[in-house]
Amino acid sequence: MPSDELFAPIFVPDRVWGAVSGRAWVQAMLDAERALARAEAKVGVIPADAAETIASCCYAARFDVERLADEGRSVGNPAEPLVRALVAEAGDAGRYVHWGATSQDIVDTAAMLVARTALDEIGGEVGGAASACAELARTHRETAMTARTLLQQAVPTTFGLVAAGWLDALLDVRDRLHTVRSTCLAAQLGGAGGTLAALGADGLAVAHAFAEELGLAEPALPWHTNRVRVGELAGALDITAGALGKIALDVTLLAQTEVGEVAEGGDGGGSSAMPQKRNPVGAVLTAAAARTAHAHAAQLTGGMPQELQRATGGWQAEWTALTGALAFTGGAAASLRETVEHLRVLPERMARNLELSGGLLLAEAFAYLLAPFVGRPAAQRFVGEAVGRAEASGRSLAAELAADPHVTEHVDVATLEQTLDPRRYLGSAVELTDRALARYDVEQPGGSR
Amino acid sequence: MPSDELFAPIFVPDRVWGAVSGRAWVQAMLDAERALARAEAKVGVIPADAAETIASCCYAARFDVERLADEGRSVGNPAEPLVRALVAEAGDAGRYVHWGATSQDIVDTAAMLVARTALDEIGGEVGGAASACAELARTHRETAMTARTLLQQAVPTTFGLVAAGWLDALLDVRDRLHTVRSTCLAAQLGGAGGTLAALGADGLAVAHAFAEELGLAEPALPWHTNRVRVGELAGALDITAGALGKIALDVTLLAQTEVGEVAEGGDGGGSSAMPQKRNPVGAVLTAAAARTAHAHAAQLTGGMPQELQRATGGWQAEWTALTGALAFTGGAAASLRETVEHLRVLPERMARNLELSGGLLLAEAFAYLLAPFVGRPAAQRFVGEAVGRAEASGRSLAAELAADPHVTEHVDVATLEQTLDPRRYLGSAVELTDRALARYDVEQPGGSR
Amino acid sequence: MPSDELFAPIFVPDRVWGAVSGRAWVQAMLDAERALARAEAKVGVIPADAAETIASCCYAARFDVERLADEGRSVGNPAEPLVRALVAEAGDAGRYVHWGATSQDIVDTAAMLVARTALDEIGGEVGGAASACAELARTHRETAMTARTLLQQAVPTTFGLVAAGWLDALLDVRDRLHTVRSTCLAAQLGGAGGTLAALGADGLAVAHAFAEELGLAEPALPWHTNRVRVGELAGALDITAGALGKIALDVTLLAQTEVGEVAEGGDGGGSSAMPQKRNPVGAVLTAAAARTAHAHAAQLTGGMPQELQRATGGWQAEWTALTGALAFTGGAAASLRETVEHLRVLPERMARNLELSGGLLLAEAFAYLLAPFVGRPAAQRFVGEAVGRAEASGRSLAAELAADPHVTEHVDVATLEQTLDPRRYLGSAVELTDRALARYDVEQPGGSR
Amino acid sequence: MPSDELFAPIFVPDRVWGAVSGRAWVQAMLDAERALARAEAKVGVIPADAAETIASCCYAARFDVERLADEGRSVGNPAEPLVRALVAEAGDAGRYVHWGATSQDIVDTAAMLVARTALDEIGGEVGGAASACAELARTHRETAMTARTLLQQAVPTTFGLVAAGWLDALLDVRDRLHTVRSTCLAAQLGGAGGTLAALGADGLAVAHAFAEELGLAEPALPWHTNRVRVGELAGALDITAGALGKIALDVTLLAQTEVGEVAEGGDGGGSSAMPQKRNPVGAVLTAAAARTAHAHAAQLTGGMPQELQRATGGWQAEWTALTGALAFTGGAAASLRETVEHLRVLPERMARNLELSGGLLLAEAFAYLLAPFVGRPAAQRFVGEAVGRAEASGRSLAAELAADPHVTEHVDVATLEQTLDPRRYLGSAVELTDRALARYDVEQPGGSR
Repeated sequence: MPSDELFAPIFVPDRVWGAVSGRAWVQAMLDAERALARAEAKVGVIPADAAETIASCCYAARFDVERLADEGRSVGNPAEPLVRALVAEAGDAGRYVHWGATSQDIVDTAAMLVARTALDEIGGEVGGAASACAELARTHRETAMTARTLLQQAVPTTFGLVAAGWLDALLDVRDRLHTVRSTCLAAQLGGAGGTLAALGADGLAVAHAFAEELGLAEPALPWHTNRVRVGELAGALDITAGALGKIALDVTLLAQTEVGEVAEGGDGGGSSAMPQKRNPVGAVLTAAAARTAHAHAAQLTGGMPQELQRATGGWQAEWTALTGALAFTGGAAASLRETVEHLRVLPERMARNLELSGGLLLAEAFAYLLAPFVGRPAAQRFVGEAVGRAEASGRSLAAELAADPHVTEHVDVATLEQTLDPRRYLGSAVELTDRALARYDVEQPGGSR
Repeated sequence: MPSDELFAPIFVPDRVWGAVSGRAWVQAMLDAERALARAEAKVGVIPADAAETIASCCYAARFDVERLADEGRSVGNPAEPLVRALVAEAGDAGRYVHWGATSQDIVDTAAMLVARTALDEIGGEVGGAASACAELARTHRETAMTARTLLQQAVPTTFGLVAAGWLDALLDVRDRLHTVRSTCLAAQLGGAGGTLAALGADGLAVAHAFAEELGLAEPALPWHTNRVRVGELAGALDITAGALGKIALDVTLLAQTEVGEVAEGGDGGGSSAMPQKRNPVGAVLTAAAARTAHAHAAQLTGGMPQELQRATGGWQAEWTALTGALAFTGGAAASLRETVEHLRVLPERMARNLELSGGLLLAEAFAYLLAPFVGRPAAQRFVGEAVGRAEASGRSLAAELAADPHVTEHVDVATLEQTLDPRRYLGSAVELTDRALARYDVEQPGGSR
Repeated sequence: MPSDELFAPIFVPDRVWGAVSGRAWVQAMLDAERALARAEAKVGVIPADAAETIASCCYAARFDVERLADEGRSVGNPAEPLVRALVAEAGDAGRYVHWGATSQDIVDTAAMLVARTALDEIGGEVGGAASACAELARTHRETAMTARTLLQQAVPTTFGLVAAGWLDALLDVRDRLHTVRSTCLAAQLGGAGGTLAALGADGLAVAHAFAEELGLAEPALPWHTNRVRVGELAGALDITAGALGKIALDVTLLAQTEVGEVAEGGDGGGSSAMPQKRNPVGAVLTAAAARTAHAHAAQLTGGMPQELQRATGGWQAEWTALTGALAFTGGAAASLRETVEHLRVLPERMARNLELSGGLLLAEAFAYLLAPFVGRPAAQRFVGEAVGRAEASGRSLAAELAADPHVTEHVDVATLEQTLDPRRYLGSAVELTDRALARYDVEQPGGSR
Repeated sequence: MPSDELFAPIFVPDRVWGAVSGRAWVQAMLDAERALARAEAKVGVIPADAAETIASCCYAARFDVERLADEGRSVGNPAEPLVRALVAEAGDAGRYVHWGATSQDIVDTAAMLVARTALDEIGGEVGGAASACAELARTHRETAMTARTLLQQAVPTTFGLVAAGWLDALLDVRDRLHTVRSTCLAAQLGGAGGTLAALGADGLAVAHAFAEELGLAEPALPWHTNRVRVGELAGALDITAGALGKIALDVTLLAQTEVGEVAEGGDGGGSSAMPQKRNPVGAVLTAAAARTAHAHAAQLTGGMPQELQRATGGWQAEWTALTGALAFTGGAAASLRETVEHLRVLPERMARNLELSGGLLLAEAFAYLLAPFVGRPAAQRFVGEAVGRAEASGRSLAAELAADPHVTEHVDVATLEQTLDPRRYLGSAVELTDRALARYDVEQPGGSR
């Protein structure tokens, strides 16, 4: 998009950007042309020395991206001017450039190569974020805090489990990104009508060698207008953005002044005008980038119905949408990784917030203390009434329950008092945290650590 | 949505509808409650006879859906009123209903059960459509027709390959639907804060037994606000809708009066006012349903960032969106299956359209005839000039090329004449068709046929 | 959508639902047929008594909606079976039913009628919400509270201004809804190809009388595939949903346990398991409905490109999307109205939260106290350093600044102390609140109050 | 977005691009700072000479966009580093830079300025396209062609009416763009918390003068988190993209080889490999750009719910989305204008296509010939049967009807023969075309022409 020199770098770091830039796309198209020439030489369609001459020209630095874009506007795609320029560049071997291929073969193959590099960047950032979450989960395995549902204090939990939940989601999307990278990225070679007709009897052999050259999967059929693999890629980016956005949202909420249980620890976040603020800048950038990535991803799946053998708009609209989906998912992953890597966790604020309601957030604990004796519905009714009295009287919930003979008939006062300790009502929080950590350890390249 | 009694049945057939209706959701929530009771009895949390009494009440017919909806409005979810009604229904055993669970446990588990049934319906329709496409591909393996890029006649292809392309996409999405069905559908049990605290030391055991009862996967962690599995489900539906929409678009385009290469063969499609029309009604309904499914699916992924331990809107918005995504993907699949099952293919129109340009759509064939001698760029230039002359003179492209000494220097006139036959320029169309058919045969439940 | 009997009523109250239900659509289509017959009688195209007979049959109760839906599936729209049924119903006059019209004329005109009724409901709810916000703004015109940017305490504001901001947005969207209702809703009459050919020379006269009968605008041209008016309607609903969603989000955030500045006052919101919670159910339902309305609205604008004289999917997909956009915007408006009407505002918590940081949220105030002497950048630097010291020392910001000679050179200690009062740093909050109230008063039907 | 150097220029011409580039945004932010300084000097908040010094520094060429972007990443917005750089640039006057404002004031105001320029470009392109459509409608006022519904030949129409329909839609969106430009673009000045507190008693006066300096509307209230005006702008762009996309779709369909009624006349569209093709490149680029614009616009309205006094992601995500929506709507408008300006209309192909069905597309005409005698339903039945016979026999529809005594009882053979002329069944096509032209003439700046 036009404004990238100002806004895109705010959301997308250079390394991710480099994977999807115009120059990267041009190089990927050249990689496709090089692979095509070599595949055809291997099969015997074109001379080997011509193929090597072509290959030796396939460097983006030799081409003028701006001019390609300009000429691309009049023909409706960037491959055709690039092919013309490559023909000129290759001298005598130019007569063998782009043999039997169509522009979409080159652009689609380039898209897969661009996606592969970008997925590696994204995967790396997601993996880094997962490591940081694993560390947080491990460190705060038993740090009690408040669980909040509909943003209301509900019951106790641990920060370890919160971080484990983040980790779990990151492992989910890392898996999906990995699967998509290894199964959905396929070479595209079909020629003008998807029949490989210009290659005569050699079509399938060339297509095979072409995919092999590139290290991409060889598809059963050309997929010019079967955009399922683009849709799968978009879907993987979309859920990645969603998972990152969720963590960013949590960080923002926990970092609120009134909650104050975490703070971003990086350099940013200061406000010159309001120096008391601890702006969760990384989380905010993550959330913004995730929204943008979602919009691009949804455009990709929405554009899947493409006409007959080549689309009249849906395909062309993929170029910026795919670039955007990759870039902003990568940007979100990078911001989030930095955010969780430097996250300052404040257990004392967590502890203080647990006390905020004078034990009311243990209402459920009291109810399940009583439930074995009177059943769940009655127990909840008794406790609900005691909550009302506690709110009015300012006394603790344990005290109010201790005053109710329906309760003391079954539970003694000491037990009621003990129940006021949030650390005694953590259920399986620690075991669940360990499960996520175990999953993380198993799924690490090097296995357990 | 309110209008279903008029519009939804136009797009979604009864069988699909039945899988996602309000009643189906209520039954699925009751299935979750039943499984919870039994799992808890198994682990020893509640008495076995209470569990069986509860189980015996878990039939949707015993509950008033309208009233549940009504009461659901005031508490913000449908599970809470259902639990209250189930407590009442279960008599003494009511005290053990919903033990240790939270509303979201029930609604999310129900969503998975509803999705499972709906995915089976969708999978069946997609499979039926794939069968029909395989049949079309087999029958028209060698039926030549025009490939059209940007809706312009490009080069010859076969209808077999077109149908094989449809088949290939349907197999892709069938695979994905299958994977999602078998790996993403997990039971949800976390209790109020996702810690299973109300179940004390038995939480994990109950969660395990609960998933087992339901035949759903047991997740590592409760996923109240890790919506990756919802996002993966949405993504699978989205690409399915996209693949179906593509086929519908092709049918509509090939059925155009001026193209006339296919026609829908079902009963519909007549227009009383304009009886000459062959409205591609099935394809149109498919296209419309696919758009709607996409909108719902994109809403689901866009809503993934959910707050802390329970969302304040994003989760609640999933209920109608998931229902809609399942229903309309199913509707699209059903319409498309009917469309391709009854598709009338008109080879004579295909043949006539191949002749329409007087051989101009073989320009590429001529160019690659010459290219070995003069190189691809020069060959295309010579042929391009001949195309211009042929358009002006009305003579055939072969005749114009035969008049060019640059051409006849390399190729004789008889060869030029032969090249005018579109059936000689089909490249690997037949082999590619066979590849798709082989994939279909291998991936069928019963193997090759 | 299929699930309406369970979920839709949770988000959409009966009154809104009634405006867009299947029955309402059937009645609107019948209203179109009645108006067509009468317009044609007026112009002399069909006999007056036939028109009246037809008119007398145009009651939805006489038709079987389920059967219409069923038959609509095979022809691809609901108007054709309705016309057939109306012909049968009208006896001899049946020969004049639907004279010169096409199905899309009837469905599109019905859409406008349905939209008109629904917009009235939505407008009423938005107006009610605006009234409640005006009341809140008036009552809390001077109630100080914390402004939060990026959810960090920033500077003081008033709850009056917060409510005035809500009011301002509601007035914006009310205006837009009103404009759309009065300018975008037009009758549709073009006949099979948009030329009114079946009406011979009477086409334009009938079209004029038809619009007049219905009280809808007469468009310059039939708009079968010019969907700008549908897009404008969608846009108005989309921004309405967005404005409602923003208010709901604010309510949810202010209602957080740790913030506690507002609470929903209705009956709902209790949690049986966790009675201490004050779930902001109305805000949550609003947020969810607003998301759903947005998805439907975006589908409508995304579907605007429609083929030639009638679309092959884009138009058909409008029916449920328009219904959904109207219903869920209305649902969001109704929930939000209830929420703000019963909102409990807790000024003492607002006051307490203002004190939470020990004056740090007045950092900007201190900086602008100093800025006239040392410039804005230096002032912010001095204050920033003092904030750091205050955080470390636990002393007040005024105290820390009082210890800095750079500061006391310009400002005396008494002034510093005074600056700690957040009520002295409200800027134009009250005047801005009055502006919004003035706008509200002026734009009310009855003028100022 | 990162890839703009390759793809964006394909869709967005330089002039549009220039209005929304990073440099344009920086200049717009500087325009806001300049206007702020001058407004404050006018009100007496800062010295007049300081204001003029600041103003003299407000040129984008003096700032390093890349560095601003880089620093913007660490604070989460581009205004803060720009302010710092401007302070440095302004020397002593630097102490008065950005007085009382917050970053969002500057970015939002800049957004409005960028939008204003871009809307002018877009409006110019839409106006140019409208002129070209008016010319087409005028020239082809009586050129008969086929109306196609669901892409089936339906009844005759004129190309004049088709172009008039395009014109009508373009005038609709031009109106809306104009209204949005003149009513929705407002200055933003609220200070840190939206209270203008840092300006003490001068807040409202400065805000007034600020808006006046910029020629933007003065809003009743700061609109930091009331994004209705952003939503209205997005909506206007969205319907513009939709209207452009519809015309592009029609051009693509009419340009199909088998239809051949129009062709793009520009230089592009050739395919080197398949020189016979007449690729509708302009229409395809329009369609692609319109899809992209829609995705950005929908993101903007979907992001309207923003938190309290400043959003945590929704606002930040607006920057690239607004840029993209403006750029790609402008790009679509430019491509479409070029397309319709150079459109080659081929009346002889239109005439030939009208004959294609041997009169079957006049079935409706025959039915309405009979309907006055036998009623509409019976007439359609007779004609429907005759259509069936004609398809079987190959005879004309007139001949088949002439053989039916039910028909000849009422209509003589000569009349039947005459009815076969499609030019006699154009209904109000010409009058409707004139209506659109009249609307165009009236709404032109210079009135009728």
